[in-house]
Amino acid sequence: MTRLLYELAAADETLRFSPFCWRIKLALAHKNLEYETIPWHFTDKAAIAFSGGDKVPVLVDGDHVVSDSQNIAAYLDETYPNEPPLYGDEPVRALTNFIRNWSERVLQAALVPILIPDIFPQLAERDKAYFRQTREARLGCTIEELATRRPAAIATYQATLAPLLATLRDQKFIAGEAPGYADHIVFGALQWARLMSSTPLVEGPLAVWMQAVLDTYGL
Amino acid sequence: MTRLLYELAAADETLRFSPFCWRIKLALAHKNLEYETIPWHFTDKAAIAFSGGDKVPVLVDGDHVVSDSQNIAAYLDETYPNEPPLYGDEPVRALTNFIRNWSERVLQAALVPILIPDIFPQLAERDKAYFRQTREARLGCTIEELATRRPAAIATYQATLAPLLATLRDQKFIAGEAPGYADHIVFGALQWARLMSSTPLVEGPLAVWMQAVLDTYGL
Repeated sequence: MTRLLYELAAADETLRFSPFCWRIKLALAHKNLEYETIPWHFTDKAAIAFSGGDKVPVLVDGDHVVSDSQNIAAYLDETYPNEPPLYGDEPVRALTNFIRNWSERVLQAALVPILIPDIFPQLAERDKAYFRQTREARLGCTIEELATRRPAAIATYQATLAPLLATLRDQKFIAGEAPGYADHIVFGALQWARLMSSTPLVEGPLAVWMQAVLDTYGL
Repeated sequence: MTRLLYELAAADETLRFSPFCWRIKLALAHKNLEYETIPWHFTDKAAIAFSGGDKVPVLVDGDHVVSDSQNIAAYLDETYPNEPPLYGDEPVRALTNFIRNWSERVLQAALVPILIPDIFPQLAERDKAYFRQTREARLGCTIEELATRRPAAIATYQATLAPLLATLRDQKFIAGEAPGYADHIVFGALQWARLMSSTPLVEGPLAVWMQAVLDTYGL
């Protein structure tokens, strides 16, 4: 049985850039689970219709099909209880949920206006019209208008890093002495930035921490 | 033996408004430890010189004198291991530290420009010159200039609440089913806002959660 992860890809299919897919790749590594990835593009809705959803990550684990990173993390903990926990006991799950909300609503939200103009030209041709339409509708401006606001967006992003940088001055990982699911989540956001940005966004202590996460899992 | 907590007070000494003192009051309640408080004012440096520092909270616990909320929390866990933990195991301690950094560097930082003009007139007369001098030097503007920027400061503060509000939609407390030290820390910040602001800053789900924290400890 091969475990399969459908994962968002750019025109260059070796470029896998979804923050939500990255957190699941690290979660699978954390739980010592092997898998193969299938590159997926925004407009390949038919290819994952079997999951009941239209977004990745989608995990196919034997007879089980699980979509949405939240569901996948819960599934992995439930199905593989003898491997290291992602969420673990209640306070850890709950505190990690705060950090997930911060990562999605503050950190990723600050990265969106920087990265959208950088991601657009790197997409497969067939994804470009879909990406432009959905993102411009969501943001209320064109991708080109967004690009002109890059310096202000970068300043906003840098300011959002304050609690993360302060924490990494006190401890090696967000979850303490070893990475946990909170690390996987925040890593996913910054990996998205690192892979797709046209200018460096992840440097110094953040780069050191990201390398330490990868090193932990031999990635 | 009476356990004593030196705590920041306004001109009305029943008004105890320090976010750092509030987190320790909740921490003491969490650990089922009784104590008496001693009202303290910013310029009463001599009264706490015995602690080796010049700020509150200061806890006097028998022969032990501990200052700084971080030190006090660690002291309480170490000294009273049979009471419910504040930090507990490593992932809980580490994840709580992220939330502490968020609470201090984002939430409290957003509240400072709103609350400074509201706190100033409520201080004891002997504290006012000290407060004006230290805060104006730190902020680079007068208290009166700060007051003119209140609407923008409130908008910034409201935006910082996003991850907290999202978390409290998923779970009753930041630490999950029962309040933990992460709750005490964030409660302290919002209690400071609630007690000192001239306009309501803590409403709806935030007020519900704060009441639930107080109810947990019978406060």
